[in-house]
Amino acid sequence: MKHQPRALWRDKLYEVIFEADTRAGQWFDIGLLIAILISVSVVCLETVEDLDRVYGRWFYHAEWTLTVLFTIEYVLRVVCVRRPLGYALSFYGIVDLLSFLPTYISGFGFGRVGSFAVIRSFRLLRVFRVLKLIHLTSESEDLASAVWRARGKIVVFLAVVFITVTIAGTSMYEVERLHNPNDTQFTSIPQSIYWAIVTMTTVGYGDIVPQTTLGKMLSALLILVGYSLIIVPTGFVSAEAVNIRRKQDTLTQTCPYCLVEGHQTDAVFCRVCGRPL
Amino acid sequence: MKHQPRALWRDKLYEVIFEADTRAGQWFDIGLLIAILISVSVVCLETVEDLDRVYGRWFYHAEWTLTVLFTIEYVLRVVCVRRPLGYALSFYGIVDLLSFLPTYISGFGFGRVGSFAVIRSFRLLRVFRVLKLIHLTSESEDLASAVWRARGKIVVFLAVVFITVTIAGTSMYEVERLHNPNDTQFTSIPQSIYWAIVTMTTVGYGDIVPQTTLGKMLSALLILVGYSLIIVPTGFVSAEAVNIRRKQDTLTQTCPYCLVEGHQTDAVFCRVCGRPL
Amino acid sequence: MKHQPRALWRDKLYEVIFEADTRAGQWFDIGLLIAILISVSVVCLETVEDLDRVYGRWFYHAEWTLTVLFTIEYVLRVVCVRRPLGYALSFYGIVDLLSFLPTYISGFGFGRVGSFAVIRSFRLLRVFRVLKLIHLTSESEDLASAVWRARGKIVVFLAVVFITVTIAGTSMYEVERLHNPNDTQFTSIPQSIYWAIVTMTTVGYGDIVPQTTLGKMLSALLILVGYSLIIVPTGFVSAEAVNIRRKQDTLTQTCPYCLVEGHQTDAVFCRVCGRPL
Amino acid sequence: MKHQPRALWRDKLYEVIFEADTRAGQWFDIGLLIAILISVSVVCLETVEDLDRVYGRWFYHAEWTLTVLFTIEYVLRVVCVRRPLGYALSFYGIVDLLSFLPTYISGFGFGRVGSFAVIRSFRLLRVFRVLKLIHLTSESEDLASAVWRARGKIVVFLAVVFITVTIAGTSMYEVERLHNPNDTQFTSIPQSIYWAIVTMTTVGYGDIVPQTTLGKMLSALLILVGYSLIIVPTGFVSAEAVNIRRKQDTLTQTCPYCLVEGHQTDAVFCRVCGRPL
Repeated sequence: MKHQPRALWRDKLYEVIFEADTRAGQWFDIGLLIAILISVSVVCLETVEDLDRVYGRWFYHAEWTLTVLFTIEYVLRVVCVRRPLGYALSFYGIVDLLSFLPTYISGFGFGRVGSFAVIRSFRLLRVFRVLKLIHLTSESEDLASAVWRARGKIVVFLAVVFITVTIAGTSMYEVERLHNPNDTQFTSIPQSIYWAIVTMTTVGYGDIVPQTTLGKMLSALLILVGYSLIIVPTGFVSAEAVNIRRKQDTLTQTCPYCLVEGHQTDAVFCRVCGRPL
Repeated sequence: MKHQPRALWRDKLYEVIFEADTRAGQWFDIGLLIAILISVSVVCLETVEDLDRVYGRWFYHAEWTLTVLFTIEYVLRVVCVRRPLGYALSFYGIVDLLSFLPTYISGFGFGRVGSFAVIRSFRLLRVFRVLKLIHLTSESEDLASAVWRARGKIVVFLAVVFITVTIAGTSMYEVERLHNPNDTQFTSIPQSIYWAIVTMTTVGYGDIVPQTTLGKMLSALLILVGYSLIIVPTGFVSAEAVNIRRKQDTLTQTCPYCLVEGHQTDAVFCRVCGRPL
Repeated sequence: MKHQPRALWRDKLYEVIFEADTRAGQWFDIGLLIAILISVSVVCLETVEDLDRVYGRWFYHAEWTLTVLFTIEYVLRVVCVRRPLGYALSFYGIVDLLSFLPTYISGFGFGRVGSFAVIRSFRLLRVFRVLKLIHLTSESEDLASAVWRARGKIVVFLAVVFITVTIAGTSMYEVERLHNPNDTQFTSIPQSIYWAIVTMTTVGYGDIVPQTTLGKMLSALLILVGYSLIIVPTGFVSAEAVNIRRKQDTLTQTCPYCLVEGHQTDAVFCRVCGRPL
Repeated sequence: MKHQPRALWRDKLYEVIFEADTRAGQWFDIGLLIAILISVSVVCLETVEDLDRVYGRWFYHAEWTLTVLFTIEYVLRVVCVRRPLGYALSFYGIVDLLSFLPTYISGFGFGRVGSFAVIRSFRLLRVFRVLKLIHLTSESEDLASAVWRARGKIVVFLAVVFITVTIAGTSMYEVERLHNPNDTQFTSIPQSIYWAIVTMTTVGYGDIVPQTTLGKMLSALLILVGYSLIIVPTGFVSAEAVNIRRKQDTLTQTCPYCLVEGHQTDAVFCRVCGRPL
């Protein structure tokens, strides 16, 4: 990136807001996370009627204070970033904007904005910036890497699950209808597929449950099949995790004479030819 | 396979319908998958009363259009394949036939055919052909291979589960009956075995639940035993997955003399011909 | 074992009944397994009122036929075994005896014997003899071995679970009582511990459910803690399974010259010193 | 630690109460564990009304006997330990004190002390001292070590779960409210987050369940996402367990010259001093 002459305060501001290398930048990140946690908590607790009746005024004030703070933060981000439009159209830029805009809209009498709390909670993703401060970046990279390497298998697995729940759902619909035409639980095939998903993942709410004997037998069979299916991706994520773990342990040194790899971290001499590493 | 002189258009057609190496063949597979997805969706959504009342006519037309298309596809498959009877009697051949035949039967007034939607959903298995196009074949082979290698253990495990749920079910039946003769939940041993399967796989619907104190104690014990049992196959599928993963890692070196693959990472000499690698 | 002179027919009988090496012995095992499966099915289905009303007579006859057959089998076992008392007092000996005795007792008017079906179902354990015939012995030994090697960890784990559910159960009892003195679900601490076991193993029947806000918060916390606890033994059974798998792969050959172990199964020359194996 | 002249009986007492190396110390630990188990059982069973009505007097006597014993034990601990205040302010010191104090308070008419049973059950943690006696210390260290090494990943994972359940809970609240304003289940966002935790961990009580079609679709999606998320830490605990297991396997060879342990199985020369093994 070519360095262009800019106001020094903007560079400073950029460092504080967008980076976490300086002390000020770290404090900014922690402060922002606390503000986000409070704002999400307020939005959540407002929906509890008992609390809203008593603390409603406090929630209202906290709401507006945080909204003003988030507005200032957004303006500062736009000002100090090199390409304001790039930021404004990025995922975080849109989430940042939508986290305070609805308050103004509903505040100025344009009515409640529905999916407000949902967008606010997306800001929680900034938690991952703070993880960096407590040296957990490599951990989260390992987790992401294990899931990423197993992505192909997860796609195949989801295809298998998709087909299985469709077949299971349609079968149960037919079976339950056959013996019990006035069934009130397996009312349609999509409903039965919902049952199949809830059952095969072992969630088992119990809101939809087979009533007929044949339905129960089929259900028991599906549970066992479903259970067997669902352990497979666990195995593959384990395999990737084992692999990542092993690489960290062994991929360190190679003997310069006989090219044997995988020496332990405290090795001084090659374990095969005996010459110094 | 000996090459016999055949009409060129039949070879072309065969290539498009049964193979996925050519561009046309790939488009055919994708088009067929979309048609199957639509047909399964229509069959499913038809059973939702609210939707059927409003969009019933659209479903009717989509149904007949797809039925005609599937009929044409079936005829073309029979025509271009080398051994028509072999195809017609294969699993896919029967599923293909049964996916459009019931529409004609019920359309010409012979009454609704029950297990119709179930057979349609079996056609979804063609998804695996499309996985090939997006280079996920090796992934699905790995998954299938891990399950296949662990098949012996899965059979043993299912035998253990079968015995455990039978003993658990009969025990609970006796215990619940003993203290509560008018029990309405553990009404029979098969019902209790159904309860044991639902419980030991941690699905836990809650439609059948122990009422007596002794029943609850026995149930708690069974849950812990069941849970311990059920983690065992997970471990063995993991082991197979780790093994497959390791093989992929070690399958790197090839002997330049005898071309044997899969030498261990610290190998100095070829394990088959003894010459240096 | 010193060979003593015995009647030849007793040796023959012993071979057929207790061993599975001869053709006759295999057929005997399979026949016995089928008889056991039928007897367990009959005992189970008898408890279904609808079936008992219709097929009650058939069940009665099947019951008595199988009882007579099991009596003959038991007598033959006692006769041909070298130490009859040793067999009669062994686990299988007692189970064999108790599988037919209750029928006579209730048949001669001494009233129904309660835990009858339970004992019958224990005979299903003979399934493992038949697994030997289809070459699954090594599989079941691997499974048993993985569980056995992890037994120490399972004991520790069960201690942790025991302590956790006790603390969790008593906490929930206090919390739910505090806010809701007329609570009808967390009526006593043992009941709360039952809830904790059902919850932490993710069975989640839903028959006992927190009602107060504080109870729900505590419950959510317990679920996450419980879930984290319960994945640990899965990991250790996986580790044992991986270990067993690796040993089978590598523990085959050792180089007689440089003593390097772990050669692949098709190795002809040592991979380190290059001399023939 | 500098040795100070002390009464011999205090050293003896210290050895018996705080250590498990002598025979007397082992018997003391086992006796204490039994006393704790009885006291926890009594506190639990007292809350069962039916039992309390019949055995109330026995519970009362057992309660006071154990309380006196625990008081004596506490006094002896304080007397024989080198730094009494250090013990009194330690976790176990506080738990020991609080395990008998509430009985006196409520016994002398100051009213029932609520969280009494909870504190008692914390004393069960002394079970781990007894595990030492049956040689399971290394097992529990392995378990603790696997969890400890995976702690970073567990923190990251809990952050992911925390964000996911917040987004999921708020989404479901909005969706269910939108189509069903008089919803009695998703009454507030915290309630919805509770639902999300119960669902994503596959507990699935079924006390809160989506009613609308869109809610069910979103719910099915969340179950699949949640399930995929939750298998990840299982994989990483498995990886740590595999790693611990492998270390135990390789820690066999010791160099006869420099006594370094843990050489790989195919090592010919010591990796630290270079001399042949």
